[in-house]
This record gives sequence, structure tokens and C-alpha cells, in this order.
Amino acid sequence: MIHSATETKLGRYLLFLADTVEPGYAKTAFGLRDWARERCVGEMVLPAATVSTGLPRLNPQQARSLGADALVIGVAAPGGLIPPHWIPALVEALEAGLDIVSGMHIKLAQVEPLRATAAALGRRLIDLRTPPANIPVASGVKRSGKRLLTVGTDCALGKKYTALALTRALRARGVDAEFRASGQTGILLAGGGMPIDAVVSDFVAGAAELLSPAAAEDHLDIIEGQGSLFHPAYAAVSLGLLHGSQPDMFVVCHDPSRSHILGYPAAPLPSIEAVIAQTVALGRVTNPAIACVGVALNTSSLSEADAQAEIDTLAQRLGLPVADPMRGGAAFERLVDNCSTRHPEQP
Amino acid sequence: MIHSATETKLGRYLLFLADTVEPGYAKTAFGLRDWARERCVGEMVLPAATVSTGLPRLNPQQARSLGADALVIGVAAPGGLIPPHWIPALVEALEAGLDIVSGMHIKLAQVEPLRATAAALGRRLIDLRTPPANIPVASGVKRSGKRLLTVGTDCALGKKYTALALTRALRARGVDAEFRASGQTGILLAGGGMPIDAVVSDFVAGAAELLSPAAAEDHLDIIEGQGSLFHPAYAAVSLGLLHGSQPDMFVVCHDPSRSHILGYPAAPLPSIEAVIAQTVALGRVTNPAIACVGVALNTSSLSEADAQAEIDTLAQRLGLPVADPMRGGAAFERLVDNCSTRHPEQP
Repeated sequence: MIHSATETKLGRYLLFLADTVEPGYAKTAFGLRDWARERCVGEMVLPAATVSTGLPRLNPQQARSLGADALVIGVAAPGGLIPPHWIPALVEALEAGLDIVSGMHIKLAQVEPLRATAAALGRRLIDLRTPPANIPVASGVKRSGKRLLTVGTDCALGKKYTALALTRALRARGVDAEFRASGQTGILLAGGGMPIDAVVSDFVAGAAELLSPAAAEDHLDIIEGQGSLFHPAYAAVSLGLLHGSQPDMFVVCHDPSRSHILGYPAAPLPSIEAVIAQTVALGRVTNPAIACVGVALNTSSLSEADAQAEIDTLAQRLGLPVADPMRGGAAFERLVDNCSTRHPEQP
Repeated sequence: MIHSATETKLGRYLLFLADTVEPGYAKTAFGLRDWARERCVGEMVLPAATVSTGLPRLNPQQARSLGADALVIGVAAPGGLIPPHWIPALVEALEAGLDIVSGMHIKLAQVEPLRATAAALGRRLIDLRTPPANIPVASGVKRSGKRLLTVGTDCALGKKYTALALTRALRARGVDAEFRASGQTGILLAGGGMPIDAVVSDFVAGAAELLSPAAAEDHLDIIEGQGSLFHPAYAAVSLGLLHGSQPDMFVVCHDPSRSHILGYPAAPLPSIEAVIAQTVALGRVTNPAIACVGVALNTSSLSEADAQAEIDTLAQRLGLPVADPMRGGAAFERLVDNCSTRHPEQP
């Protein structure tokens, strides 16, 4: 349990995909399906949707009767708003007895029909992207315990999945490892965390300090990264999270099929080497012992053979463990080894 | 006039110093005295204060009769709150006909006696640190016009004064230069700007894009920097401001008497060379032509002779113009030359 950051109940969910046709917008729905399948009773779509989680299609009444507590908005709409044509389905969910959970910047209660219906029926509107009150300015003081942060060459290429996969693998080996969520999907999975990109910029490093509090020296927090230090819009989030997390170790997450920052065609993707060098240079401000312990490749666009070749080539080039955590195998075991044994000592 | 960021009236002010004994906490009062003397009618203190601006001591009635529109809270209290023992003086100001202006993170209307008195008397409570609504995510698209950003080895060592002094000197030479304020004192001085450290981290680079909009190619925005890329708490603010500002030029501000980050004894001050290298490396993400055009030294702790020696030594070491903008002289003229003539072309 995280006392000083956002907490949420580990509920059972109906995943709302709205009318989404772009799988990249359905990260929350896919994340819940892939990492909390047992808490997802099904999905609900509007007629125009082409994206699916493959879970049973249910209406709110059916989901409620199967034990769902809440409808989770599992997609992000362009612009971060709730379009008017979603509202009847959301009102129907409230009327069927479900709460609504959202990870958008906009607050659910700002949508008047949702506010009014929830108030009339006693349902809850849960905004995961609402940071706790009174976040302090970062102290910069080194905390006890060990920390690993996943960083990236870009957004949306596997930082959360890598952190979850490493946590699962390390716990299976008996390491006292804990996943620390910095985004809305991770918060739903973990039952708590810190929506770091919704924190006022003066306090973002302080919020990261709260997310991963002082711990026993053999405890390892595995912190979900956000954005990229080379992202034209979100690098501030990445740097505040890096400074407040004070990681001893980091893993660089990368998608070899990308040539530029997603949605920013004028911004070339940084090299993995540049991300390693910048993460070390900037991370040293709060933890001089910071070190890169490996690379997580998202090879979902490659065949098994091409993925293996890419992993081998990169491991050779970097002299570091490289693996696709979703493919597992010997390469992933080597990456896990390096995370569990390195625990760099402070100078 | 800045349409898309915070705007405020160019009023006449009574500077409230409360019971402050540490000059470092009175940056807003000193900034107004030094850069808008004609709009400051006087100062008001509580009995325990030892800090003074040297302006006439007035009570609110006297200030009002001398033409003041508002009391400006000219100091920051530790913790960023308004202590209960300040409230009678602030209520007295409202009763005397003054509005209250604050640059704190806390909103004035959250202090119940101020809210109630202002509402009853029709006075305004003006929070400079309230960003505009609906700030977009940064586009990263290069804007027309030229930009210069002041950056620093630390907080509170002259980034605002340097930007103001460069703007004044360049305008005197006929350059179409404009000061762009990113903090509360600068916003009061300029009548507008963007309280960048109060913006939610996902939008901080987007807010910096709003602060310095597209302009004619011979227009130069001189943007007030914030924090330091090496600051354990505030680097996220600095990086978002850097990325959104897309500066063609930057000036590094430094105080040679500092050995560590102010208030962070475990964090050594970065070298000027490290700040130059990091600002170029990170700034290239949104402007590949970014270049350092000089260094502004805050030599207020040194004698004239020691200051000149420090400036000469550093200029030799760096091969760049170095000056204390507050001392002026030939060194400052060289720095201004380099800002006005360089305007690096895009590659």
C-alpha cells in the first residue's frame, strides 16, 4: 500500500473502448487485459470501433451481473476530452450500478451529465490522474533501498510492460521487488501510484520521491518510466521522474521500428547510446551511482527470427543484456540477472 | 501584449515585506524596486522585519492616497504559505482600497479572511501563479522569429535581471527585443507572461511555446529562465522551458560565490561548461542551431577589482563574452554585441 500517493481499489472492470479504430489509443485497455486479466469481465464498444481486446462483449447490465464494480475508460481520445457521443454509454454504466474510472487529464465531474447522474445514484467518478494534495518540493536527499527506473527512447513503447515483467521475474526469484506506477494504467494495476504527468512542474521530482519512499536496503522498487528525455513535449516529466526516483539502475526501452518520436515527424528518435549517456549525466544529480543495466526491446513488429537477430546485434554493440521482456527466453533471464545482482553500491 | 498567457495590469504597488529577515526571500520586492521603481509607492513591514527595499515606509491608507492600486506580497514565506500573523495587515490593505497581488503557489482566496473581505468590499485577489486554462501539449514545431533564453547553474542568481538588462540594452540599440516573463515577478514587470513552474508537467513545454509565439524574423524574444538542469527539485521546469522556448541563443547565469545548489548542500554546483554542454545537448531536440552566446556573472559578493578579475579569467577560460549585467561596462557591451549580432541561422 502506498500511503502518500494516489490509492485506488483493486476492482473488477468493464473495459470501455468507445469508437476507437487506432490500437495505439487503447493502451489502458490492453494493459489491464495483459496484466490483470482476472479483473476484467469484458469489453464494451460503440458501433464504429474496430479495436478489440478479445474479451467478451458485454453491456453494463451484463458486466454488473458478472461482478464488475466499474467501467474503465480504456482509451484516450485525441485532445484528451470526453466526446459527447460517448456520454450515453457512460450514463448507462452508471445506471447499471457501475462506477466510472478515467485516466484522462479532464475530470469526469466536469462532464455535467456524468456528474449529475453519479450524484443522483450515489456512484463514484474516479479520476486516476488527480495527484494527491500537498506534494512537497523534492528534498534531493538520498533514500534507503534500491530503485530501478525504466526509461525510453520515446513514449508508448514498453516502459510499463518492462517494469511489470521485471517485477514479476524478480519476485519469482525471491527478490523483494515492487512495481511503482507513474501512470494511470499502472495505478489501476498496482492499486496505487503517482500520476506524475499531472503534477505541477515545480513538484514533479517531489512527487517521484513520494512514489518510491525509503525502504529496507534489500528492497527494490521498479519504477514505471514516462516519456523520454528527448521528447519535445514530455521530457520535463521524464527528468523530474528521473531526479525524484534516484535510480541505482535503469533499463532503456526501445522500439527498433521507430525512426522518429511518435507524432513528431521532425524529431528523430535518439540513439540508445544517447539515452544511456543523458540518463547517467542527469541522473547523477540525485544518485551518483546510477548505471544502465540493460535494454528492453519491443520487437512486436518483428518475426521471432528477426527479433532474435536484432537482440543479438544490439547486445554485441552495447555490451549490455538486451531482451524483449514479452518474448522471455535466455536473453530475458540475463537481463533479469543483471537487475537482481547489480544493486550498485554508493561511492 | 501577450494574448495567450497570463496578463496583468501595470499597476502601482505597495510592497509588503511582512516580517522577513532573509533578503533572499524578498526577490519580488527587490525586483519591482530595481526594474519598476516608478510603480512602487513604498513598502510595508511587520515589526520583526529586518529586510528593507529602502523605499518609504507607508501604511495602506498612505499608499492608497499616493496612488497605489494594490499591495504586492513581495516575499516568499518558507513553505509557500500565508502565515496567520500576516492576515491583519493584508485585511487592512483591502479595507484601505487596495487589491492584493500574490505570486505564491497557494491561492489568496483559499485564505478565508482575505476571500471574505475582498468579496464584501469588491477588491481583487490576483494570483500571478495561476496558469491560463487549456494549455496545449507542445507541438515541437519550430516557430519564426529569434529567441534567447537565460539559463543558470542554480536558482536565484540573476536569470531575470540578465534577461531584463539584455532587453533594455538591445532595445537601446534599436533591436526589436522583448522580455518574456516566466515567473511571478517578471509577470508583474512585463504585464504578462507564463508562471511556468505552476503548469502541470505534461504541458510545461507547451506553455513555453505560448509564452514566446511566432514572430517576425528580426524580432528577438528574451526569455526569463527558471531553475537549472542540474537542480534536484526544479530541473523539470528548466527542461520544459528550454524545449518549448526553442532558443537560438542562451546566456548562462552564474554566481561565483556558490559552491552547491542553494538549499541543497549535498548537490554540488555544476560547472558553467557542464551547463553549456547540457543545454546544447538537450536544446537541440527543438532547435538544432542552439548556441551559447555568453555568461552573465552575478558578482554582487565581490569588490569591483575582484569582479573584473573573475570576469577576465572566465572569459579567457571559456572563449566567450562574460559580464556582470548589473555592473555594465565594456564587458557587458561585448555580451550585448554577441546577443544582437549572432542570431544563428538554421542549418
